[in-house]
Amino acid sequence: LVIHAIIMAGGAGTRFWPASRADQPKQLLSLTGGPTMIQSTVSRLGSSVPPENVRVLTNERLVDKIREQLPDVPSESIIGEPCKRDTAPCIGLAAALVAASDPDGTMIVMPSDHVIRSDEQFQQAIQFAADLVEEDPSRVITFGIKPNYPATVFGYIERGGELETSSGEHAFLVERFREKPDLETAKNFVDSGNFYWNSGIFVWKARTILDALRRFEPEMAAHIDQIAAAIGDDSFEAVLAREFEAIEGKSIDFAVMERYEPVCVIEAPFEWNDVGNWTALEGLVGQDEEQNTLVGNQLTINSSNCIVRNENAGDHLVALVGMKNCIVVRTDDATIVVDKESEADVKQIVAQLESKGWSQYL
Amino acid sequence: LVIHAIIMAGGAGTRFWPASRADQPKQLLSLTGGPTMIQSTVSRLGSSVPPENVRVLTNERLVDKIREQLPDVPSESIIGEPCKRDTAPCIGLAAALVAASDPDGTMIVMPSDHVIRSDEQFQQAIQFAADLVEEDPSRVITFGIKPNYPATVFGYIERGGELETSSGEHAFLVERFREKPDLETAKNFVDSGNFYWNSGIFVWKARTILDALRRFEPEMAAHIDQIAAAIGDDSFEAVLAREFEAIEGKSIDFAVMERYEPVCVIEAPFEWNDVGNWTALEGLVGQDEEQNTLVGNQLTINSSNCIVRNENAGDHLVALVGMKNCIVVRTDDATIVVDKESEADVKQIVAQLESKGWSQYL
Repeated sequence: LVIHAIIMAGGAGTRFWPASRADQPKQLLSLTGGPTMIQSTVSRLGSSVPPENVRVLTNERLVDKIREQLPDVPSESIIGEPCKRDTAPCIGLAAALVAASDPDGTMIVMPSDHVIRSDEQFQQAIQFAADLVEEDPSRVITFGIKPNYPATVFGYIERGGELETSSGEHAFLVERFREKPDLETAKNFVDSGNFYWNSGIFVWKARTILDALRRFEPEMAAHIDQIAAAIGDDSFEAVLAREFEAIEGKSIDFAVMERYEPVCVIEAPFEWNDVGNWTALEGLVGQDEEQNTLVGNQLTINSSNCIVRNENAGDHLVALVGMKNCIVVRTDDATIVVDKESEADVKQIVAQLESKGWSQYL
Repeated sequence: LVIHAIIMAGGAGTRFWPASRADQPKQLLSLTGGPTMIQSTVSRLGSSVPPENVRVLTNERLVDKIREQLPDVPSESIIGEPCKRDTAPCIGLAAALVAASDPDGTMIVMPSDHVIRSDEQFQQAIQFAADLVEEDPSRVITFGIKPNYPATVFGYIERGGELETSSGEHAFLVERFREKPDLETAKNFVDSGNFYWNSGIFVWKARTILDALRRFEPEMAAHIDQIAAAIGDDSFEAVLAREFEAIEGKSIDFAVMERYEPVCVIEAPFEWNDVGNWTALEGLVGQDEEQNTLVGNQLTINSSNCIVRNENAGDHLVALVGMKNCIVVRTDDATIVVDKESEADVKQIVAQLESKGWSQYL
């Protein structure tokens, strides 16, 4: 079954400064070596989604760079949103574009900056989701990640009764979506065995999600329908700019997922990592005997539990002596040294750079 | 009184890697901005020692670089030792050169890599020392530093009876030289009030130190006399290489100071810092409200008690987030991050670079 893919690539990624910059956020980087995150996101889709069925929604600022990174995706399918309006308008716009070209089309919606392994398991899961949608086009499907610790940085999905599926594979009705919990609640979720992390990956018919938006968010849907009516027209850019701007920003979770029925959840059979911070490199790259995670040209003496990411340009050497629990990231024009406990404060560096007007580093 | 100066500039300075390198050790650097340490060492002498009376003894490898840094010192006065033989042979050779040009000449011997303030106080102290030597040419004079903490990294000088001086300024006979003590002993030294740190700065007549070497180290002196006999001769370089090589290495403290009488000590009226490691920058550059010592282009967030030295080339930015008690030094081709407690282990980086054959960083 050939479907469409919508890749959401709007993230700013200030947590990865200095590797990530305003015009080169995390999704355009390779944090672990090899293809960039958005390149991996597209190639992971395999034959389920040929490149002409891929659409990328992003900031206007990033359109050209993404076109360079994804030469096989038609350049008109890399679409700059006129302004930031959260995920529901973005998905509505994408669904309108899919429906215009393929009225009964099924689409997968996914972020551009997650690490997923393996591609095969992922493609099998997409096919299973697409089959569930073919069986009942009213279904909207989410992928849930089995939690291996009580994370407080993810939303959770509580599963309900199991679906009967023709393949015999497992899928469940969603009982409830839950916001990011506190630690105590997260522990209860994990202990119950009925909760998944919300991966932000969805599969549905384009027309189903458009109908849902018309039902739950009629104002938003009216603007999107205006945009849809202009597809293929000379006025499209102008209509898009005007109507998209007029939409009130809202997440797809609030707009649809928490209100719609039936929402189904598939337990992801693939390995998933949202790479929320540098510490995620430990799981992705691995650690040496001293629990150091080392990428690039470096030397360590009596150091442990550290992360070093040294861009290789210019053969610059990074050396650590007697360091514990710290993160060192070096690029051509900036180096950051962060205590692991303070990783969330990296944003403050970006804020300081902005307030000082040191835009060369942003 | 115009005297001669011998500046000893042989140090390798591995403790300051990556700022210091094999062909650019500490004495050729400006650790705090401004002139390099050896440039400051020469200019500090002022009119007491005109440039034509300055002689620098160093590794052959450093001769050209030092000539570049000291254009006012005659190039033949920057002398490469054929091999490393500790301080006594170096000083003996220097004294022979001074005596050959000025048989009754007085000389100051001093390291090239200390910070001393102010120049005026230093020059007054030199003049006082030179006067003491004129009054009694048999005297050898040392400068003692009043200890402000029980350091275990310096040798100590125990003072004895006070000299009668024509100027009324204070000077003392040396009772004893003491090796680097353990902490307990150092505390006793400091408490007694009769001990100074040994600064390694000496003033004496060239002929006096040559006579002393002939008395205490006749073999060493015989080689030096051979070299002295060849001064001005075409064979000088060859004789120097042959005879200097044949000398057994020994420090001037063991060879002369601990055996000679009368040795006198002047309490240094100047501020003195041997800049033994990066932590010394805190005293020299100062600290901000969070006790950070910051040199070059940097930003700090929630960081304290850190030292950052960022060479400015290329506008590279160094940012610290949540770091405590660490030292970050960045040069064009290397960056080191060191816990302050581990500063002594920086040498291990240099050793690893050597064993790996990564000579570009040495």
